[in-house]
Amino acid sequence: MKTHRLATTDADFDLRLAQLTAWSEERDAEVGARVSDIIRAIRERGDAALIEFTNRFDRRDVRDISELVIGAEALQAALHRIPAAQRTALEAAAARVRDYHQRQKQESWQYRDADGTLLGQQVTPLDRAGLYVPGGKAAYPSSVLMNALPAKVAGVGEVVMVSPAPDGVVNDTVLAAAAVAGVDRVFTIGGAQAVAALAWGTATVPGVDKIVGPGNIYVAEAKRQVFGKVGIDMIAGPSEILVVCDGKTDPDWIAMDLFSQAEHDEEAQAILVSPDAAFLDRVADSMARLVGTLEREQIIRTSMANRGALILARDLDDCLDIVNRLAPEHLELSMDDAETWAKKVRHAGAIFLGRHTPEALGDYCAGPNHVLPTSATARFSSPLGVYDFQKRSSLIGCSPEGASRLADIASPLARSESLTAHARSAEYRILKTPDAKKS
Amino acid sequence: MKTHRLATTDADFDLRLAQLTAWSEERDAEVGARVSDIIRAIRERGDAALIEFTNRFDRRDVRDISELVIGAEALQAALHRIPAAQRTALEAAAARVRDYHQRQKQESWQYRDADGTLLGQQVTPLDRAGLYVPGGKAAYPSSVLMNALPAKVAGVGEVVMVSPAPDGVVNDTVLAAAAVAGVDRVFTIGGAQAVAALAWGTATVPGVDKIVGPGNIYVAEAKRQVFGKVGIDMIAGPSEILVVCDGKTDPDWIAMDLFSQAEHDEEAQAILVSPDAAFLDRVADSMARLVGTLEREQIIRTSMANRGALILARDLDDCLDIVNRLAPEHLELSMDDAETWAKKVRHAGAIFLGRHTPEALGDYCAGPNHVLPTSATARFSSPLGVYDFQKRSSLIGCSPEGASRLADIASPLARSESLTAHARSAEYRILKTPDAKKS
Repeated sequence: MKTHRLATTDADFDLRLAQLTAWSEERDAEVGARVSDIIRAIRERGDAALIEFTNRFDRRDVRDISELVIGAEALQAALHRIPAAQRTALEAAAARVRDYHQRQKQESWQYRDADGTLLGQQVTPLDRAGLYVPGGKAAYPSSVLMNALPAKVAGVGEVVMVSPAPDGVVNDTVLAAAAVAGVDRVFTIGGAQAVAALAWGTATVPGVDKIVGPGNIYVAEAKRQVFGKVGIDMIAGPSEILVVCDGKTDPDWIAMDLFSQAEHDEEAQAILVSPDAAFLDRVADSMARLVGTLEREQIIRTSMANRGALILARDLDDCLDIVNRLAPEHLELSMDDAETWAKKVRHAGAIFLGRHTPEALGDYCAGPNHVLPTSATARFSSPLGVYDFQKRSSLIGCSPEGASRLADIASPLARSESLTAHARSAEYRILKTPDAKKS
Repeated sequence: MKTHRLATTDADFDLRLAQLTAWSEERDAEVGARVSDIIRAIRERGDAALIEFTNRFDRRDVRDISELVIGAEALQAALHRIPAAQRTALEAAAARVRDYHQRQKQESWQYRDADGTLLGQQVTPLDRAGLYVPGGKAAYPSSVLMNALPAKVAGVGEVVMVSPAPDGVVNDTVLAAAAVAGVDRVFTIGGAQAVAALAWGTATVPGVDKIVGPGNIYVAEAKRQVFGKVGIDMIAGPSEILVVCDGKTDPDWIAMDLFSQAEHDEEAQAILVSPDAAFLDRVADSMARLVGTLEREQIIRTSMANRGALILARDLDDCLDIVNRLAPEHLELSMDDAETWAKKVRHAGAIFLGRHTPEALGDYCAGPNHVLPTSATARFSSPLGVYDFQKRSSLIGCSPEGASRLADIASPLARSESLTAHARSAEYRILKTPDAKKS
């Protein structure tokens, strides 16, 4: 089957790798304008506009806003309606994800310096978080768990989920996942109108402090536009995996690991890098043999042909150079001593260590979050986590002696910035010169 | 002097408070278009465009890009040129800020579950950070320390500072602060062109992974537009303080604390809330008496008249309700038992505890960062910190037994999402059914 073949020793390797991995978010001016119209309408007309957009974009016939609300009983009913194996798996996955995320929780801290001045940070959860869950074909119950559970672990007061129901159809497994994750309220709304409602609030949809979760180009643009009014998570690009293999893993396993990424959509990117040329050929053989056995064969063929690659490196260090250059969302180190090699990784969303850790396990249930930085944003950002639903307030409590000493430092700096009121405010607290107060 | 007077018992209190504190970032479509033109020019023509924009906007006559570089010697020279008191104060402030921030550093962590599967997060610093420092009138050396030191403490490989030099003038104290903070490189460029150069890199200016620091409307818009290519800090609104006082602090101190906020600019907001009506009058008297003694009298009069307020509350709990409603950038708890009351604060950028802790001490040297979430964004965001210059990679290393057990959970979930390659990739790792490999 078709895919790119490169070698790090190729004269044009840098250029070809750059072209292959280039991805820039399309920001369409027309989409931007339509989204800002939708946001304005929701701000001005609230629930009425929300009903109009929902009827138009999701082909529904809603008369009253209450038809867009899914109650707690309906979530529980869905949980009991899905197959038992799915329910058990959802609950097992949720337990593991919850356990892992509990270890991410940040605690308040404080200390006193020699002057008795208290310094620290007070950590608190968000009051309310909004979770966007795509509806229709791309309905992923695992995303509900991965987005809602960190918020719940953080202690967020209320987790509000929105998910469109195109033609009135709601995905039972998604609702069941919401029940398992402890989502507090669900609205069957989607698109830019749902993001606007969460950001600004309507009579029915409560305004939240942060909006997380994936969505289409309208949802992404709406999140960008409401950023500042509320917090948002990263805006995700196509999903990617980079597999590094020393040539000793079963090539069928590696082929299927690449396919598990490629099957997401035509823009997904699956790359294998190895110093073993014969192994790359064996993986190519496995891919050719296995692709026909998969439901999403055509998507896999397209994404492997357009954006996939098998790369021959000089040695394992050369492989790690490519890792740090690409800063991949998913990195699989299918090799001996993977834990040792991982210490050389400077940028990656998630690192899957060893031959028995395919990305798919992390996607569903290993524990860590599957919402990860894409498109090389792992250079500066992190997996979604409990820390995204907590915030910090600095704590400063000066003793009279500490204040006096600090004022001696602050005063000349404030005066160098021509901020006299700052200087005077500080100088009032200088103990040795009580007369300063009367200046 | 003129300012707003409100009482929480007023019939129209909620509305008046909302109007008083309303602030929405002006996003001008024309500014947006000009900024995207500038970014495109920098991407396409690099250093040449950077020289053109700098000459035009900063009224300079630069011929060669090397004229925009400030070397390490020049920074040290500035440090030796400024008055000794300023130098000592800068160094003392830097030492305290560094010490506090060292306590924020996140460490990698990992554990093994009962199956021997390794889980955790690997924490790494950014490779390179960019720091924007406004030039000209609003040149604040303290901002250099507050933005650069957390990056250095995080272990960022290279900290690059940009600051415009209008008419060729550079602020010595700003350069001295860069020397004290250990900034690695400085360019005298500013505006959207500097942000674009940092985000995309030119032949001379290295591309960075994250851009932090305050700036004017063009800088803010440019940061918004490059967000995604690089990380950015929050886009700040006008600075604010909310002082809660039980009526037992010297009213002159409180008046000056309010002024220290109001003197920043005409849009700054300084609000006092107290349950003691007579105390509010005494503070008003102090304000009237003291305002004339200050360099920035006119700015203070304007901001207090437009956006300042003295608010009478029912009691101290009522004061705390206002705190959590406004989520202020700076919160001063000038009252008995401030530490106890602070525990009731859900949202604030920084909490200044007790009568001896004016905001001015935190602005310069107490230790915590002075870059804080404004405009109620403390509801979902935090002070700038070391954590903003670190990122995490999830670690997952399955033992064969652990992988097998996880695959049993992942497989039905993947199949419920119609992701067969995910399911098959997981199933290959099931130990009990070696035949699955041949499916």
